[in-house]
Amino acid sequence: MTSFGSRLRAALDARGPLCVGIDPHGSLLEEWGLDASAAGAREFGLRVVDAAAGRVGVVKPQVAFFERFGSAGFAALEDVLVAAREAGLVVIADAKRGDIGSTMDGYAEAWLTPGSPLEADAVTLSPYLGAESLRATLATAVRHGKGAFVLAATSNPEAFALQSAQVVDVEAADGQTVAGRVARDIAWVNGSAAFSGELGPIGLVVGATVDREAVGLDDDALRGAPILAPGFGAQGAQPADLPSLFGGVAANVVASESRSILSAGPGGVAARIAERSALYAKSADV
Amino acid sequence: MTSFGSRLRAALDARGPLCVGIDPHGSLLEEWGLDASAAGAREFGLRVVDAAAGRVGVVKPQVAFFERFGSAGFAALEDVLVAAREAGLVVIADAKRGDIGSTMDGYAEAWLTPGSPLEADAVTLSPYLGAESLRATLATAVRHGKGAFVLAATSNPEAFALQSAQVVDVEAADGQTVAGRVARDIAWVNGSAAFSGELGPIGLVVGATVDREAVGLDDDALRGAPILAPGFGAQGAQPADLPSLFGGVAANVVASESRSILSAGPGGVAARIAERSALYAKSADV
Repeated sequence: MTSFGSRLRAALDARGPLCVGIDPHGSLLEEWGLDASAAGAREFGLRVVDAAAGRVGVVKPQVAFFERFGSAGFAALEDVLVAAREAGLVVIADAKRGDIGSTMDGYAEAWLTPGSPLEADAVTLSPYLGAESLRATLATAVRHGKGAFVLAATSNPEAFALQSAQVVDVEAADGQTVAGRVARDIAWVNGSAAFSGELGPIGLVVGATVDREAVGLDDDALRGAPILAPGFGAQGAQPADLPSLFGGVAANVVASESRSILSAGPGGVAARIAERSALYAKSADV
Repeated sequence: MTSFGSRLRAALDARGPLCVGIDPHGSLLEEWGLDASAAGAREFGLRVVDAAAGRVGVVKPQVAFFERFGSAGFAALEDVLVAAREAGLVVIADAKRGDIGSTMDGYAEAWLTPGSPLEADAVTLSPYLGAESLRATLATAVRHGKGAFVLAATSNPEAFALQSAQVVDVEAADGQTVAGRVARDIAWVNGSAAFSGELGPIGLVVGATVDREAVGLDDDALRGAPILAPGFGAQGAQPADLPSLFGGVAANVVASESRSILSAGPGGVAARIAERSALYAKSADV
């Protein structure tokens, strides 16, 4: 069994940082000429997988856009997950789950357990109940060769107050932010990866346009962790910005784009993926 | 269309604060002699609904324990949700969802839209991306006569550092905590409920054993909001403690118990619900 960090490293090295979002939301289904139904979401997802395979290494289905159709939507998502994994893509289920104890085990069972109908390579997690409350889930992920990306700092303007708040807990270093605490709380899982230059199994979500210093996420806080960075493409950051935005940890970034790619429609999506991916390759060569 | 706050008020007035958790986790399914499968979770959920109907006003299915079975688990959950709503119970889907923009709309469509297969009366939400990012979802809830409970402060020990962190945003009052900010950010939805003594549509999750002063959630911060309080029963707080723990907002508390009730087994669960419910009635009479 290879670790998630190794599989992700290989995918990024072979295909570059671009991760294609699979977001079958209402207006896109309409633009693609598909029904606003679980069947439409399934068809949309399968076509995006087809277009992504061989062009990028990573895809990220957005669970909410399947969940809105209930159990039928989840059945569609299951088909999309299977197709993506069979195509050799690394699959990050963007579910942002977060709970405690045995409830969290339920989510780990759903997304990170080999043979589960919703099996992915990694899942996104939300740490409002404390990133330490995810400890058992992260251990489960590692045991199964799976990964996770824990929300740390995001680009939406409503997020800053919370994610930059100062921890006053007795254990906290002076000036520790909430986002910095999340990074610290997951660092144990990645262990020596921070020093060896390898990629650990547990990552962080860090928006591309976040002021990393202001939220306490300098390069040292992120070293060894895969970084899932939404905010490229339609949301504002450009591929050419990646090296400067992520400095010493730029090689660990998974740059997620959805709208900028999916707006190309069913006929143009494969070409758009190739085009966007080439922009990242060019920026890495500079 | 009645508001969620009115329906919840009526349920609490008629049946008391006890909310029965529907948590078909592995060890409970085994104790109940049911398969560890979607069919087992469905049967478990339907039996708990039967036992709860007429004895309490509110139930809270824990989504993770259905999600672990994938789409089949969601089909089971749909059946449980329908049965609970047909039995006249107020149903809080404990999903702890949280995202931004159109993604969050997907979750609102799933849980808070009349006619959706996963329709509930209210859903729990997680505010790590900023409670303000939930604004459109909360507005959708109100428009549909639905409710939501946003995580504010929880009883698990890993949560304190984050939830008590101090907001340093320019808009923040001195000493505003993350949990206090969440309460402030949702207050607009409840509007005049804080002053009229009615119950607004949007609530907060506040663990029963949380030090409310330490996390910035005094009575004033909570007034007008329904309060979903896990932590009663097996987790430590007793029904007799409710009035002192929640002071001036005790009448707005939904006291959630799971293990303490479900451990009675299929033969004893109805009697256990009646017994636990009577303890809350007794504490309110003191």
